[in-house]
Amino acid sequence: MGRLRHKLLRPLLARLLMEVTPMAHEQFKSCIDACVRCAEECAHCGEACLSEADVSMMAECIRLDRDCAHICWTAAAFMSRGSRFAADICRVCAEVCDACGDECAKHEQDHCQKCAEVCHACADECRRMADVAA
Amino acid sequence: MGRLRHKLLRPLLARLLMEVTPMAHEQFKSCIDACVRCAEECAHCGEACLSEADVSMMAECIRLDRDCAHICWTAAAFMSRGSRFAADICRVCAEVCDACGDECAKHEQDHCQKCAEVCHACADECRRMADVAA
Amino acid sequence: MGRLRHKLLRPLLARLLMEVTPMAHEQFKSCIDACVRCAEECAHCGEACLSEADVSMMAECIRLDRDCAHICWTAAAFMSRGSRFAADICRVCAEVCDACGDECAKHEQDHCQKCAEVCHACADECRRMADVAA
Amino acid sequence: MGRLRHKLLRPLLARLLMEVTPMAHEQFKSCIDACVRCAEECAHCGEACLSEADVSMMAECIRLDRDCAHICWTAAAFMSRGSRFAADICRVCAEVCDACGDECAKHEQDHCQKCAEVCHACADECRRMADVAA
Repeated sequence: MGRLRHKLLRPLLARLLMEVTPMAHEQFKSCIDACVRCAEECAHCGEACLSEADVSMMAECIRLDRDCAHICWTAAAFMSRGSRFAADICRVCAEVCDACGDECAKHEQDHCQKCAEVCHACADECRRMADVAA
Repeated sequence: MGRLRHKLLRPLLARLLMEVTPMAHEQFKSCIDACVRCAEECAHCGEACLSEADVSMMAECIRLDRDCAHICWTAAAFMSRGSRFAADICRVCAEVCDACGDECAKHEQDHCQKCAEVCHACADECRRMADVAA
Repeated sequence: MGRLRHKLLRPLLARLLMEVTPMAHEQFKSCIDACVRCAEECAHCGEACLSEADVSMMAECIRLDRDCAHICWTAAAFMSRGSRFAADICRVCAEVCDACGDECAKHEQDHCQKCAEVCHACADECRRMADVAA
Repeated sequence: MGRLRHKLLRPLLARLLMEVTPMAHEQFKSCIDACVRCAEECAHCGEACLSEADVSMMAECIRLDRDCAHICWTAAAFMSRGSRFAADICRVCAEVCDACGDECAKHEQDHCQKCAEVCHACADECRRMADVAA
């Protein structure tokens, strides 16, 4: 029963949050921006990894950059249309961002170090968003 | 510690499942097919809803069809590249499919009834996939 | 033969443009930003259209908002990874943006008027990008 | 004037083709299936390329697999909702498929040879679709 009420109220509140309170809209906006920024950085990093002398060493980075960019664009799309599932997507997005950031942090290339920073920042934004809307 | 081991082992096992055992690959394949089928049905239903005489009554259905098609295409893409996050996406996908199926089931139009059935079947496949890979 | 050379040179030049000249990178960046902004605005407009009293009147607008948001996110993704097909996608994107902007311009709601403006601006950016990279 | 009429009639005819004649619907269905199949194969090939001993040699293949999978999923989505821009997306999709198929054909690995075949078949389907709907 508590779970049912939770299930019915959550999307309603998320919608209200976005439409009614300016602060909440700001929260969405800030998370969309973080996701777009992260998607761009991962795309750039993945491309740069493919041009490294030793690509084999970067294979896991390339995989995670690809997944991370994909889920970030998806999260941005769900948030931008105020979907009731935005928080669920952001929760997964935070996990992917952290995994990608952790992998990137292991490589000393500039594009990886930069990407690690942006990924971790995006993970934080996504978690905040998911908590506010949950 | 248990959680950490879980976190490290899960993606590894998911990858192994897909690459090594034919049954598991079949499981992936079957879930990808269900997601593609569901995405197509939701796209068709959403389009048909927009052409109904009373579109206002179908607004929530159109919203959910759109979200459901989007997450289904996304889940199919993550599974098809054997991403370690496939199970996480499938878990969210199952929730969206159920919500979309429940909404569609309320409307008597053929396209909605058909879509409800396909959505619930896809939710089942996604949950199975997420459980196997988790 | 001219066509063959064109086909071989185009992607190379697009890549060079992005990587070598700062102005060209700026061009990409500006077009990515326009696409992201347009995708967000179309998502917002489509959602607002679904909440209008007379949704039937907005059906075509909802369809185009959905297509336009989709192709804009796609174009942004292709550009952000410096894909050799970025210009081709941008050319299609410009057509979709113009169609969406023209439809939105017919409706007096604020969200449609705003969306029309953003769509036409994005169409211009995409055409410029496609011409530079072609 | 001829161009204007062309522009107005094309989407109308594409819609009619899909909704009215069963053959045309079959045509769409067959092209959607080809795109989904190609997206899956490119995802598989790209992943296998990343696990090769010499990844550097496969860099261009990985890039094209990624672009090809992306545009194929996108084309499938546009066709499945009967979008008036389906033909335009399919035209670009055919180009990307051909480029990816040509690159894959250069590598002797099974996954590349298989992918080359599927890509070229999808390019043919997309061109047929674009011509029918144009």
